[in-house]
Amino acid sequence: MTAVVRRIAEWNRVAAGIRREDVLGLVPTMGALHNGHGALFDEARKHCSVVVASIFINPIQFNQRSDYDLYPRVFDEDVAFCETRRVDYIFAPPDNEMYPLPQQAFIEIGDISEHLCGQSRPGHFRGVATVVMKLFQILRPQLAFFGEKDYQQLAIVRRMVRDLNVSVHVVGVPTVREGDGLALSSRNRRLNPAERCLAPTLYRALLTARRLIACGERNAAAIKDAAILVLQNVPQIKLDYIELVDPGTIRRVDVVQAPVRAAGAIWIGDVRLIDNVYCDPAQHSTEDCSTQLSMRTCGVNVR
Amino acid sequence: MTAVVRRIAEWNRVAAGIRREDVLGLVPTMGALHNGHGALFDEARKHCSVVVASIFINPIQFNQRSDYDLYPRVFDEDVAFCETRRVDYIFAPPDNEMYPLPQQAFIEIGDISEHLCGQSRPGHFRGVATVVMKLFQILRPQLAFFGEKDYQQLAIVRRMVRDLNVSVHVVGVPTVREGDGLALSSRNRRLNPAERCLAPTLYRALLTARRLIACGERNAAAIKDAAILVLQNVPQIKLDYIELVDPGTIRRVDVVQAPVRAAGAIWIGDVRLIDNVYCDPAQHSTEDCSTQLSMRTCGVNVR
Repeated sequence: MTAVVRRIAEWNRVAAGIRREDVLGLVPTMGALHNGHGALFDEARKHCSVVVASIFINPIQFNQRSDYDLYPRVFDEDVAFCETRRVDYIFAPPDNEMYPLPQQAFIEIGDISEHLCGQSRPGHFRGVATVVMKLFQILRPQLAFFGEKDYQQLAIVRRMVRDLNVSVHVVGVPTVREGDGLALSSRNRRLNPAERCLAPTLYRALLTARRLIACGERNAAAIKDAAILVLQNVPQIKLDYIELVDPGTIRRVDVVQAPVRAAGAIWIGDVRLIDNVYCDPAQHSTEDCSTQLSMRTCGVNVR
Repeated sequence: MTAVVRRIAEWNRVAAGIRREDVLGLVPTMGALHNGHGALFDEARKHCSVVVASIFINPIQFNQRSDYDLYPRVFDEDVAFCETRRVDYIFAPPDNEMYPLPQQAFIEIGDISEHLCGQSRPGHFRGVATVVMKLFQILRPQLAFFGEKDYQQLAIVRRMVRDLNVSVHVVGVPTVREGDGLALSSRNRRLNPAERCLAPTLYRALLTARRLIACGERNAAAIKDAAILVLQNVPQIKLDYIELVDPGTIRRVDVVQAPVRAAGAIWIGDVRLIDNVYCDPAQHSTEDCSTQLSMRTCGVNVR
């Protein structure tokens, strides 16, 4: 049985009953749970004797009010999902429990926050880092699980934990994808069928980057251009960015000499989607590098 | 016996031996310990079964390199002082233990940091809040003790703890003064005898503010002018600020309707001194309000 905890004081009573030999694992979420979260719960279950999921749609990380308002809210479904994944506790505080006063103290993470999504979503990572720190302080887990889909977020949380000496071990969990490659995301629910059909194009663009790297291309600009071309073939998609970045610092790489993350963000209609893939220049392609990747999307050939 | 701990891993071994029923109290310091710190240790000793003093001259809170370089460093004396005050542990990490990498994650506290010393020392409180958070995470005390002399710092730490849900109880301890009223401070060591002699003028200026409030004056501008006049009588003193502020928000008060802190900062030579006093408009003066306060300083009458 999954128990729902709404108040910090209530959690403190739960925590007082957790034995010293227990290992507490936290999976922070904003709800609208899917199998991507499921993989986080499963990973937590492997390492921890007590698993808590937080479900909190954090207002201070939304830079657009409409995005906050439209964020899917399906709490009863989420509770049922947690039951099936053997989550012990859901911590689902109301806004006034997390922010009883206007927040004045924030975690600011320089540099690493300024690239990629940091440019298109000012203040977003400050809000993420701040709420994650609050959840760490309230729930006091030994381990915390984050998806690699939000790769920059994962890098920022790792850096925060290291720089501020937080005694939480951060575990990154590989992205879970639909059969057609689309990374699982709560925002996918907001895509209409036509948009949903086009959404995997982002992943394909990133795979194009990976394939070029595996085929020996080292010039980041050329790699990015090829990936962007895949997106430009679909007029319904608006590009936010495609970048190759260092996995630790999230700094842009100009020449691929070591493993990078190929990361991208696009808009389809009013839904913003992100994704990223690992690209290792030491892994040589077994594909034929002389031909371009060609795939069928929504019944149409896309090169 | 006071044990000196230099490394975080070493502290973790110590902490593993602390019993669950123990209460751990932290007194964060930058060394050059004096009876003001002594009062913090004594207060900690009253409430806690294990008392740890941190001694760390935190480079990221100095906005002037010369102030950092000239900050007094007397570690052996500090250890002896801690012995006499029955401190159990000194945590005195080298710089590279606290900042093994260039720090990217900072605690930023808006508004409350922007007044008083925040104006003359940009970045100072960010550095203070960040190192205090790091020490809280490393040492994991239940209680932490801070002097009221650094009143804005105390208010900022309280706000940080509240906003980020840090499970540390912050205790403020009244300022300890020399016989002539000078607030104890490590920086007092840097005053030459003539400067030392003039230094209590700041306290006298703040007492003038308090006396005016006790005598019924409510106009902050008039009160500040009177306090500033006390300082202007001493040409060796350079005024940084005199303000009346709300004790919680550190916002400037224009009309004194509730208790305020009268706070001031001055330069004497190249040494910056700060002080503050509590002023309650409900406490009426028993002094004669018709005459001005007059005191002898360094053998000279000062009005």
